[in-house]
Amino acid sequence: MDKVYKVIEVVGCSAKSYQDAIQNAVTEASKTLTGLAWFEVKEMRGGLKEGKITEYQAIIKLGFRLIED
Amino acid sequence: MDKVYKVIEVVGCSAKSYQDAIQNAVTEASKTLTGLAWFEVKEMRGGLKEGKITEYQAIIKLGFRLIED
Amino acid sequence: MDKVYKVIEVVGCSAKSYQDAIQNAVTEASKTLTGLAWFEVKEMRGGLKEGKITEYQAIIKLGFRLIED
Amino acid sequence: MDKVYKVIEVVGCSAKSYQDAIQNAVTEASKTLTGLAWFEVKEMRGGLKEGKITEYQAIIKLGFRLIED
Amino acid sequence: MDKVYKVIEVVGCSAKSYQDAIQNAVTEASKTLTGLAWFEVKEMRGGLKEGKITEYQAIIKLGFRLIED
Amino acid sequence: MDKVYKVIEVVGCSAKSYQDAIQNAVTEASKTLTGLAWFEVKEMRGGLKEGKITEYQAIIKLGFRLIED
Amino acid sequence: MDKVYKVIEVVGCSAKSYQDAIQNAVTEASKTLTGLAWFEVKEMRGGLKEGKITEYQAIIKLGFRLIED
Amino acid sequence: MDKVYKVIEVVGCSAKSYQDAIQNAVTEASKTLTGLAWFEVKEMRGGLKEGKITEYQAIIKLGFRLIED
Amino acid sequence: MDKVYKVIEVVGCSAKSYQDAIQNAVTEASKTLTGLAWFEVKEMRGGLKEGKITEYQAIIKLGFRLIED
Amino acid sequence: MDKVYKVIEVVGCSAKSYQDAIQNAVTEASKTLTGLAWFEVKEMRGGLKEGKITEYQAIIKLGFRLIED
Amino acid sequence: MDKVYKVIEVVGCSAKSYQDAIQNAVTEASKTLTGLAWFEVKEMRGGLKEGKITEYQAIIKLGFRLIED
Amino acid sequence: MDKVYKVIEVVGCSAKSYQDAIQNAVTEASKTLTGLAWFEVKEMRGGLKEGKITEYQAIIKLGFRLIED
Repeated sequence: MDKVYKVIEVVGCSAKSYQDAIQNAVTEASKTLTGLAWFEVKEMRGGLKEGKITEYQAIIKLGFRLIED
Repeated sequence: MDKVYKVIEVVGCSAKSYQDAIQNAVTEASKTLTGLAWFEVKEMRGGLKEGKITEYQAIIKLGFRLIED
Repeated sequence: MDKVYKVIEVVGCSAKSYQDAIQNAVTEASKTLTGLAWFEVKEMRGGLKEGKITEYQAIIKLGFRLIED
Repeated sequence: MDKVYKVIEVVGCSAKSYQDAIQNAVTEASKTLTGLAWFEVKEMRGGLKEGKITEYQAIIKLGFRLIED
Repeated sequence: MDKVYKVIEVVGCSAKSYQDAIQNAVTEASKTLTGLAWFEVKEMRGGLKEGKITEYQAIIKLGFRLIED
Repeated sequence: MDKVYKVIEVVGCSAKSYQDAIQNAVTEASKTLTGLAWFEVKEMRGGLKEGKITEYQAIIKLGFRLIED
Repeated sequence: MDKVYKVIEVVGCSAKSYQDAIQNAVTEASKTLTGLAWFEVKEMRGGLKEGKITEYQAIIKLGFRLIED
Repeated sequence: MDKVYKVIEVVGCSAKSYQDAIQNAVTEASKTLTGLAWFEVKEMRGGLKEGKITEYQAIIKLGFRLIED
Repeated sequence: MDKVYKVIEVVGCSAKSYQDAIQNAVTEASKTLTGLAWFEVKEMRGGLKEGKITEYQAIIKLGFRLIED
Repeated sequence: MDKVYKVIEVVGCSAKSYQDAIQNAVTEASKTLTGLAWFEVKEMRGGLKEGKITEYQAIIKLGFRLIED
Repeated sequence: MDKVYKVIEVVGCSAKSYQDAIQNAVTEASKTLTGLAWFEVKEMRGGLKEGKITEYQAIIKLGFRLIED
Repeated sequence: MDKVYKVIEVVGCSAKSYQDAIQNAVTEASKTLTGLAWFEVKEMRGGLKEGKITEYQAIIKLGFRLIED
């Protein structure tokens, strides 16, 4: 059977690192979605306060397989 | 707790203006989603008839926070 | 019969607003073209003088159907 | 009443062709969505094995109207 | 003599395939233009009805040589 | 004498409209810069609260002539 | 009266230089168009033979004012 | 062991179809490379003569695994 | 009062990591600017020597609020 | 010490050539900035009058090192 | 003597981090190439399994000097 | 027989001009490759010292035909 995937866009945040921000987004998405298969980083942004990075923000796309019934 | 947002794409239409088209899309989306926080305009198009603009179409992205249970 | 459209690029200007600039471009184009069907905004620029916006410039694409004889 | 559309991103696969890959994605999406109105091809990729194309992958956007209650 | 080409944008439609959509656009354009030399596919879109692709739309650029008198 | 311009990026905000957001950015920039000549809209975003647009944000580039002494 | 411009795409070629290629395209276009006002270089390509550049190709956009009757 | 892939760009041509053009490029590349794993279509162009498509040109990227000794 | 931000582009370098490169750029910028509020990563590059990464280079945009007197 | 660079955008004009336009922009910028290290050409435009190129406009980015005190 | 560089595209993978993925690609490339001088990150993707990041994939460009004989 | 081309990326440098930089890249590439057929300019950068352009850098793509045995 030919596969079909859905791709959604999420933004993960972290005070520690971009990789943590991505993992946070994946963790949250996997609460309601099964079969998450890949991600793509679309943008990297962040917050600043008094000359320090306070938040890493990773805008990512997440792909997961749509399973037929 | 680190925040996670979801971003969806919608197209709002209006016979009046782009700002009205954006508000229409936001109004419709807010019927089923809570926590809509920001939007980004991705494309602006429109319909024409007999040399007049008949419809403004705003393709936008909408971001909203995923709330943990 | 399968449809074919032509797409042209025009720049409309207005002292009032972007929507007026788009309408000006459409009005001028419709003097020589029939069947204008849609537009897409590609760029928005403008002129400034003494700290005031003096001109809104909308670079748009216009699509119209080529009618067979 | 002004229209509002939602746009989602899906990836269709096929061993035969890109057009079949697009149709597979549309078929799967139409199991849960009504009112699918248009699609846009965003990327075309594919799998290779021993010098042969084994899979066509079409990353597409699908637009459908949000109907008010 | 140094060559000069003009490039125009057209949208071809077809119920059958993208290649047919491109050929339709070329056929229509060649009714009024001579010397069409190349094309470039810029976008591929399409129409959907009841879960089926009803129209393939190819947005293409067409290049042709301007011949001096 | 050959002209040279500098181009800066600013973000203007407004509760009313994008055109007001652009004008706010230009007004603020013209307090310290003379010779502002043109602007280009790079991105349009905005803030949302309870299903309403609360802020229009226009990311623009501003060009002004560098005057020789 | 508010101004409207049309923008066309042409490809100029030259055995000598890119600037000559642009001028060739402008010269050819000005045989049938009046009021050419500006150009934008979109792409620069060229032909090679036996390790030498044989042709410079400038893909440019040309803007000209549409004059009302 | 962590994987490393190389990605090359090739242009395949065909008088028949884009899919044939891609397969031609893959066939030629697989004469000297082993382990070709995926492709991505970057551009689609073509040649025209007397109002007919004479050549489909697919600019693709090809990925293959670099195998350690 | 409506807010206005300025956005500047800086390149931070680091022998350790991209996050350190971003922080270096922010630290340097905050010596002369107050109110730095956010950053966006535009490009990531780096230097190599004898098969080792010797420098991480982050090209970023920095946004800060223009405060009225 | 890790390096930090600032990148600014300028537009240089010249009646002679693009290279002269770039040099004009660099010359003007170097009156107030020290340590200019590289440039990147972002856009090339120009003015036309009576079928002749009257001005070459080079939109460039200029990078220079921020020196610590 | 004027310098000439070649630029190739590689994909590095790592279970640990993006920086490790880049280093893996560089290490593999430096087995057959001398004079690797810089890299540019073009895309960042990754694999997911059961809600965890299992692989970081860095698509990078690598530049190295072509040495004359 | 259907044609297949390979496309590589090179960076040519010159103290004189962009056209010289392109020719330098082509000259170097043609030492090891036959059948170089076309080039495309992807980026133009350069080096600066004491307010003068010291190096023109042209990042180009070079296409050449793969000849079957």
